[in-house]
Amino acid sequence: MNQQYSSALLERAVDEFSKLPGVGRKTAMRLVLHMLRMDVGRIDAFTDAVSTLCHGVHYCKVCHNISDEEVCQICANPMRDASQICVVENVQDVMAIEQTQMYRGLYHVLGGVISPMDGVGPGQLEIESLIERVSRGGVEEVIFALSSTMEGDATNFYISRKLQRWPEVKLTMLARGMSINDELQYTDEVTLGRSLVNRVPVKDS
Amino acid sequence: MNQQYSSALLERAVDEFSKLPGVGRKTAMRLVLHMLRMDVGRIDAFTDAVSTLCHGVHYCKVCHNISDEEVCQICANPMRDASQICVVENVQDVMAIEQTQMYRGLYHVLGGVISPMDGVGPGQLEIESLIERVSRGGVEEVIFALSSTMEGDATNFYISRKLQRWPEVKLTMLARGMSINDELQYTDEVTLGRSLVNRVPVKDS
Repeated sequence: MNQQYSSALLERAVDEFSKLPGVGRKTAMRLVLHMLRMDVGRIDAFTDAVSTLCHGVHYCKVCHNISDEEVCQICANPMRDASQICVVENVQDVMAIEQTQMYRGLYHVLGGVISPMDGVGPGQLEIESLIERVSRGGVEEVIFALSSTMEGDATNFYISRKLQRWPEVKLTMLARGMSINDELQYTDEVTLGRSLVNRVPVKDS
Repeated sequence: MNQQYSSALLERAVDEFSKLPGVGRKTAMRLVLHMLRMDVGRIDAFTDAVSTLCHGVHYCKVCHNISDEEVCQICANPMRDASQICVVENVQDVMAIEQTQMYRGLYHVLGGVISPMDGVGPGQLEIESLIERVSRGGVEEVIFALSSTMEGDATNFYISRKLQRWPEVKLTMLARGMSINDELQYTDEVTLGRSLVNRVPVKDS
């Protein structure tokens, strides 16, 4: 036991917290000492929430989003437009798009992007299951909502080539350009250049 | 259930994490999604460490430090000098002083400082138990290691007056002045002024 801890239990809890990303030992200590001041009932609620989630987590068998059931609430919702599939990298991206309240179609969570540098090839991602979804028919549009990076673009390209077998399916991607409320002089030059090249008629924008 | 979460279990875990101090919903989400990628065994180790600590926490009945037993390892250690008691605000302060490896005496954790603005009076702190420890005899020095704030100074003053009944007990406090490695020009004027007034002979320093 480290000399500086007066309690092995305390040290163990701090150790566990400091394994989390972005949590150093000082932050871990602060969190643990805060928890020590909490009611035991609230501690039980905390550990139970973490434990129940991690033991009982499901991924939707259609779109691979986190779900409490076999099929997630979005895929199971008859009000959503099943003819649109929005392809995203991860669960947070689904939440970000849902929060805009501008999309009523379905999703497909790839679980990452193709990145040979990190050893991530197409085989590790949920690409085959996306192609199968499209091959079953009924899909009119696949929207690529991947990060605007080299890896995101490569993944876009790889999947769109695979989907060319179904020419009736429209392939689109998120618009790129100046952020809303950005001042022109502070927009980075690559974004500004692309916004200029891909300019749109005034009434469309 | 909030529309943006696809899983109620996920939302509950994020809720619990975001109740911790300094953890917002985005950080909570990041931590929870990280835990989802961990082994179930490691999750169990995490929840067990938190639960065991919070259910089984003891405070040393002598010095009120966090402890696994009735009496903490520092108080129970016969190698420590029982004639010195270092008075600190909280558990982290004990750890900070232990880390210097410059102190071999015992501690007394007050659990805060007197702060009328926050409704903390002497009665809520472990002051009576300190006076009782001193009254039992064998204590030669009480070292005040409180924060260098108005509240810390007021607490110093309050306790030292109570301890005047035992004039044989030396009362000391941490030296205040320039930090080691501080450049003089960047030292704040209050600290510099006090360092000047409380200057010490060269060979002592």
